[in-house]
Amino acid sequence: MSAHIVLTSHPARGATGANASHAVHWGAETAQARGPLVASVANPATRNVIGTHAGAYSVYRALAVASGQLQRDHKPDLTDTTPAEAIGPHPQWAEPGKIVSLDPWGHLVASEFKAQIAEGMDIRPTIAITKAHINMPELVGAIAAGRLHPDGDILQANGDVKVTKAAVDPVWHLPGLAERFGIKESQLRRHLFEQTAGMFPELVTRPDLKVFLPPIGGMTLYFFGDVTKLGRPETKVACRLHDECNGSDVFGSDICTCRPYLAHGIEVCIEMAQQGGVGLVIYNRKEGRALGEVTKFLVYNARKRQVGGDRAETYFTRTECVAGVQDMRFQELMPDVFHWLGITRIDRWASMSNMKHGALVEQGIEVVERVPIPEELIPADASVEMDAKKAAGYFSTYTPDASELAVAKGRGLME
Amino acid sequence: MSAHIVLTSHPARGATGANASHAVHWGAETAQARGPLVASVANPATRNVIGTHAGAYSVYRALAVASGQLQRDHKPDLTDTTPAEAIGPHPQWAEPGKIVSLDPWGHLVASEFKAQIAEGMDIRPTIAITKAHINMPELVGAIAAGRLHPDGDILQANGDVKVTKAAVDPVWHLPGLAERFGIKESQLRRHLFEQTAGMFPELVTRPDLKVFLPPIGGMTLYFFGDVTKLGRPETKVACRLHDECNGSDVFGSDICTCRPYLAHGIEVCIEMAQQGGVGLVIYNRKEGRALGEVTKFLVYNARKRQVGGDRAETYFTRTECVAGVQDMRFQELMPDVFHWLGITRIDRWASMSNMKHGALVEQGIEVVERVPIPEELIPADASVEMDAKKAAGYFSTYTPDASELAVAKGRGLME
Repeated sequence: MSAHIVLTSHPARGATGANASHAVHWGAETAQARGPLVASVANPATRNVIGTHAGAYSVYRALAVASGQLQRDHKPDLTDTTPAEAIGPHPQWAEPGKIVSLDPWGHLVASEFKAQIAEGMDIRPTIAITKAHINMPELVGAIAAGRLHPDGDILQANGDVKVTKAAVDPVWHLPGLAERFGIKESQLRRHLFEQTAGMFPELVTRPDLKVFLPPIGGMTLYFFGDVTKLGRPETKVACRLHDECNGSDVFGSDICTCRPYLAHGIEVCIEMAQQGGVGLVIYNRKEGRALGEVTKFLVYNARKRQVGGDRAETYFTRTECVAGVQDMRFQELMPDVFHWLGITRIDRWASMSNMKHGALVEQGIEVVERVPIPEELIPADASVEMDAKKAAGYFSTYTPDASELAVAKGRGLME
Repeated sequence: MSAHIVLTSHPARGATGANASHAVHWGAETAQARGPLVASVANPATRNVIGTHAGAYSVYRALAVASGQLQRDHKPDLTDTTPAEAIGPHPQWAEPGKIVSLDPWGHLVASEFKAQIAEGMDIRPTIAITKAHINMPELVGAIAAGRLHPDGDILQANGDVKVTKAAVDPVWHLPGLAERFGIKESQLRRHLFEQTAGMFPELVTRPDLKVFLPPIGGMTLYFFGDVTKLGRPETKVACRLHDECNGSDVFGSDICTCRPYLAHGIEVCIEMAQQGGVGLVIYNRKEGRALGEVTKFLVYNARKRQVGGDRAETYFTRTECVAGVQDMRFQELMPDVFHWLGITRIDRWASMSNMKHGALVEQGIEVVERVPIPEELIPADASVEMDAKKAAGYFSTYTPDASELAVAKGRGLME
């Protein structure tokens, strides 16, 4: 190993850079024409992107190398890892501006770039597709209550559900991202550099590198029914788009409706699959509206302790005081996954969020029916959030008025 | 806003740097003697750490600033956000080498550094402590089965459980971290820089900056019972240390025991709290053994497709082929949180992992009783993983032999 550390802010001497044979032609019609994305840390001269694979888990990879457990130039053996179900290609993969935040060829690198990998290039998947059986106690409850009916295939009598699932890491095409937000690419790059306290200087020093693998969490897709039907106009689709909320999703915290709505969305998806359509749950790693859990808990304390108690009229204000904004999830990028799947119409949309709905419509995806969470699934302490969101434009049959929003409906902090 | 972009690899002209008034004296006896950790992106000249707050969510903050929704110099208003329960200080906070991966004063910045914050310094909490009620269907089931008994306080008849919870962001003291791993600080810094593809050049150019806020996920602590009893030798403690597995924890995937063991651990914690002790669940954001979910799903495919089927004898090999290592969780850092809580003895330890147990013992924390997952909670498809782990040293009353490990016990990929 060389004693010389090479900084990354400028091209290495002798490196071919992104202008040479490994140039990326984002949005090209074939994987070969687009070219492989090379994020290798073992062979920096071949790189044509900013950042690397596995996002922030690269920090753990560093510990593995530093402690002598992992070879620094390890290359994955991708034998037997290819997708368990086929997805795409779909026409949207090559339509300008449709997909800017994931690599549509990300699951196919082992086959599409087989020759380059055989020659020793370190090219890695950013998407993996597998099969699973899942079982949630709520689904067992839905069967017992007669809402769901086992069919012996998609849904078993014991509540087991057959799914296809995909893990998707983010891959950002910076010019496309800037266009989506209506800002200059140079401004986007500058703020990415500055707000992360200088993560990846290439963002500002290497305008020739157009693709960025940001170290943020990606998404997991759960498919119910036959995935290969996606992209056909006659295929009916049900969907729950869910942004991570660990406290509710795993532990069932009663301050929000996250897990109840997720379980309800899965019911809607199972029904759609049983009727011959496809159900899709998208799970985004955007904890606490992409503010992170520390900020989320600080806000909980401020909500519960404020004079007048926890109430809908000050719900968003308390987040803004701490975080400066109400929400950082940026649904603008969210529709990309539908373009990747060839989906142009969602028949049943298990979400009330006006931001999510607006982002879909903006991207030309039709939403036929919006399915709100059934009232009986809303925990008592979550009514503060629900009322605040309904007043702010959430899809609902009822909008609370000012006097209702002023009533403290949340538990006190120490109760 | 200046048109001039300042790179971070070397101290800014006129900056006082970490050697001046904001020097960090890691491990000092008081917060004031230690000094505030300043990770401000609004005022880079005051910074004395590498990285910034909210980890990878700083990427979303950049989008918020770039799209004009957030002021780039926003400072949080911390009114009413202070901890809902007191934790510490404990003697371990000032014992050399005990805590190297979190800031023991991270929850107390609003009070300890009140004067500096009032003067305009941008100092932020890395830990937040709040209260919640949680409810998991498994706990309702445990009540119905007569294993758990509602007491009207900690556990309600409807399954609601009162908890205190804390979100903890990682804060790494690089010299301490290097010492924990028995390597040179310079080597650690170099690999952190190289394996992340050049994230934060200061890791190699600023040896004067000793503290790093890595952009990896942190942990969430769920406390059952009276948190303030922690640190007293007579307080009995039960604990489940859980590393994130989204597929099982949220969706109940049956290929592993993660959610069943978590729910069982919470039962153990509730019982301990009802007996006057404290229960503690630690939830670490280390998806797929800190390899990330894309790698995890690639490995699932390789396991299910290999010649001979999914079996325990090749369980670890399949991960190594793809990732180069079996595991990247590095339990070496995990005991820090026990030192932070003043815990020197764990009476009931709901974990079978030899790596976790070994890390605790190495750090001088006594484990009295190890509580394995009850056999009836292990899903059928998870027996491949269980057998492999038992053969590799997992705590168990029974170790499978070679002939048993050779039997394919997992479902096929397309089943």
